[in-house]
Amino acid sequence: MTPFKLTEELLVEIHQLISDKKNSDLRLMMKEFHYADIAEIADELDVEEATYLIKLLDSEKTSDILAEMHEDMREAVLNNLTVKEIAGELEELDTDDAADIVNELPKEIIQEVISEIEDKEHAKDIVDLLRYDEDTAGGLMAKELVKVNENWNVLTCVKEMRAQAENVTRVHSIYVVDDEDKLKGRLSLKDLLTTSTKTHIKNVYIPKVDHVEVNEKAEEVAKIMSKYDLEAIPVVDEIGRLVGRITIDDIVDVIKEEADKDYQMAAGISQDVEADDSIWELTRARLPWLILGLFGGLGAAAIMGGFEEMISKHAILFFFTPLIAAMAGNVGVQSSAIIVQGLANDDLKGSISNRLIKEMLLALLNGLILAVLLLVFTWVWKGTFNTAVAISLSLVVVIVVAGLIGTFIPLFLHRRNIDPAIATGPFITTSNDIFGILIYFWIAKLILGI
Amino acid sequence: MTPFKLTEELLVEIHQLISDKKNSDLRLMMKEFHYADIAEIADELDVEEATYLIKLLDSEKTSDILAEMHEDMREAVLNNLTVKEIAGELEELDTDDAADIVNELPKEIIQEVISEIEDKEHAKDIVDLLRYDEDTAGGLMAKELVKVNENWNVLTCVKEMRAQAENVTRVHSIYVVDDEDKLKGRLSLKDLLTTSTKTHIKNVYIPKVDHVEVNEKAEEVAKIMSKYDLEAIPVVDEIGRLVGRITIDDIVDVIKEEADKDYQMAAGISQDVEADDSIWELTRARLPWLILGLFGGLGAAAIMGGFEEMISKHAILFFFTPLIAAMAGNVGVQSSAIIVQGLANDDLKGSISNRLIKEMLLALLNGLILAVLLLVFTWVWKGTFNTAVAISLSLVVVIVVAGLIGTFIPLFLHRRNIDPAIATGPFITTSNDIFGILIYFWIAKLILGI
Repeated sequence: MTPFKLTEELLVEIHQLISDKKNSDLRLMMKEFHYADIAEIADELDVEEATYLIKLLDSEKTSDILAEMHEDMREAVLNNLTVKEIAGELEELDTDDAADIVNELPKEIIQEVISEIEDKEHAKDIVDLLRYDEDTAGGLMAKELVKVNENWNVLTCVKEMRAQAENVTRVHSIYVVDDEDKLKGRLSLKDLLTTSTKTHIKNVYIPKVDHVEVNEKAEEVAKIMSKYDLEAIPVVDEIGRLVGRITIDDIVDVIKEEADKDYQMAAGISQDVEADDSIWELTRARLPWLILGLFGGLGAAAIMGGFEEMISKHAILFFFTPLIAAMAGNVGVQSSAIIVQGLANDDLKGSISNRLIKEMLLALLNGLILAVLLLVFTWVWKGTFNTAVAISLSLVVVIVVAGLIGTFIPLFLHRRNIDPAIATGPFITTSNDIFGILIYFWIAKLILGI
Repeated sequence: MTPFKLTEELLVEIHQLISDKKNSDLRLMMKEFHYADIAEIADELDVEEATYLIKLLDSEKTSDILAEMHEDMREAVLNNLTVKEIAGELEELDTDDAADIVNELPKEIIQEVISEIEDKEHAKDIVDLLRYDEDTAGGLMAKELVKVNENWNVLTCVKEMRAQAENVTRVHSIYVVDDEDKLKGRLSLKDLLTTSTKTHIKNVYIPKVDHVEVNEKAEEVAKIMSKYDLEAIPVVDEIGRLVGRITIDDIVDVIKEEADKDYQMAAGISQDVEADDSIWELTRARLPWLILGLFGGLGAAAIMGGFEEMISKHAILFFFTPLIAAMAGNVGVQSSAIIVQGLANDDLKGSISNRLIKEMLLALLNGLILAVLLLVFTWVWKGTFNTAVAISLSLVVVIVVAGLIGTFIPLFLHRRNIDPAIATGPFITTSNDIFGILIYFWIAKLILGI
């Protein structure tokens, strides 16, 4: 399979077809493409062109295209559709995707759109989903699933299943509930097919099934599903009633978003931004961390100002402050990244103090190797052995302290239920810069006098 | 579902049960746990204890436990098993997991282990998989799948499928091949069940099926499967013959590893390490980047040495070098992270020059805001307007240059087919430190003279 590649030529061709209103050519061309590819195309068109394309194609396909499109573009296109058209799109979507789109609509039209949905059951399911936070199991789940009552016999069961399965794209499991809709277990298709039609489900189902509660955090659901290799997991409400089902494709998105977020946080980018966002959005995500860095730099400058009397005799000390700050920052980021990743993957066992001892030894080893390199270089360069020793020795201490801070802060934040990812990147770099330079001048002063 | 939590108490209890050789209690306890949870337990035991546990339990369960265990622990435990015992474990595993384990075995015993596998077909499939690179579709795929010949009729098909399905844990799709085993399409279960038993498959199958070639990169397979929401994808060899199948759970692992790798690279950690790895392994992953940082710092020191004559009149310039270096580093990391992420998600459209212009405007905006803050602070602190202007103005230039470098380098590496993730973290920080300080002193000298 050659993966679809959106080329400049293809885009030009589509622009042309739209402006020439060559509807049948357009329809024919789009017929060949997967809806995810058309969504990619639509994201690159003007809003008017994208709207034209959406109105042109069949709502069975456009609903999926809309669901895959970039949020901003989707919002703009929906703005150009009538309430009835939007309802038509929602009609075709699974309840989870439909609810996500409804959540983005302007508040004043939501009720109207819902009332235009012809399938009342579908509309009710969508409304049900609206009340869940998007970062919870409830926010991820769809209402589409296949469930059977434990009191049915196999024959009724097969009949009912056939009807239900029409609304469900992929049947992963058949869930068994009691008369109060409480989740009791699951049914294997094999058992169902090899059992006499009069047998009651009660006697054949598997009474154990992994499930999550509706308020469980999305991140936690992702962990459970990927640890146990589940392709779908049923969701129950507070009293154990089966209310929905989460499939693995939604979890793949959660895992990606989670990783992207941690990565951006480490790079000093708050909020979820993309390269194509506006300069204003990017500034809002980037500037706060830069201001933090600025204050860190001012702090470092103030500290150096306090050691100004050393400048006449030991100017060289001041030449090495960027080196000290960089090493403190790098070591801090390295150790915090390993801890943050370990926490995210639930890999960290054992006590905080053991971690700190290990990081201390590690930083000491790295610090000593680096200090020897630095000592030789400085000695050769400037020929003053005492200064070279002072700088190198401080480097070791700075690296050890930086490693300890980098290890301790994320563990501490995690204990306090704060996302430890915030401790990577500019936060740790800035604090380590300040501590590093302070320690550096202290030790240098101690060794060199004045 | 309360997720399994490995507590200190539980571990103590298991240690005790093993040392007391309370086999039936142990078996009873493990019966309650999922194999992924037992793998988590085994990872925390001594090698002897873990071996004891593996030998105690049924190979149907222990094979899955072994497959889920940490690589180092698995290797150690397998070392304690006989060739026959290892073959027994492989017998129970799907071919993809079995091949992964065989790849880790010492070369000299591989042949012996393979020859001890009783199911010769299974052994042959495992051997087939051994020749693929683990980062390709071939390295991810399993041989277990359900396939039917286009020339069969529905009745034969159903009979054959039943036999095949016994070896396949989850049937996602039924693939259709011709007499030469070339992939022709897929079959929907629904169509199969509603068609007369004498109809030929040729007349009912869907002739379009997403697939990948055996040498396709794992990363690319992950992109395709998550973009098109596929739960399984068939793999074909160079001439289109169906050779295997990749399921979404393996892709989830690929996505996680990819994200972990990029994150570690950004934090200055090469090689895949975890918090629990040895100090030596961690040093190997961290020290190279620190040495790079050290040389960067030495470069910065050398630059400052070149401007030494300014120190008597403008000592304050030297106090601000950590600030300049930090800002250059932060801006560089921010802009490179956004580009690297955009490239990883295939989100970047348009030309490099447009990107650079946008980043320049963005950096200019951020730089000006930061410069005003810095100007006010420096002026108030030291009262010398000229110096304050020189420092602030250089900051703006440094930030713009840093942003451009951070944007350009990953795009450049990507064009040259080098993983752009290498350009984030210490690499960009270090080069920006040096350029930043050089630009800073140049501009300051230009404005202040001497």
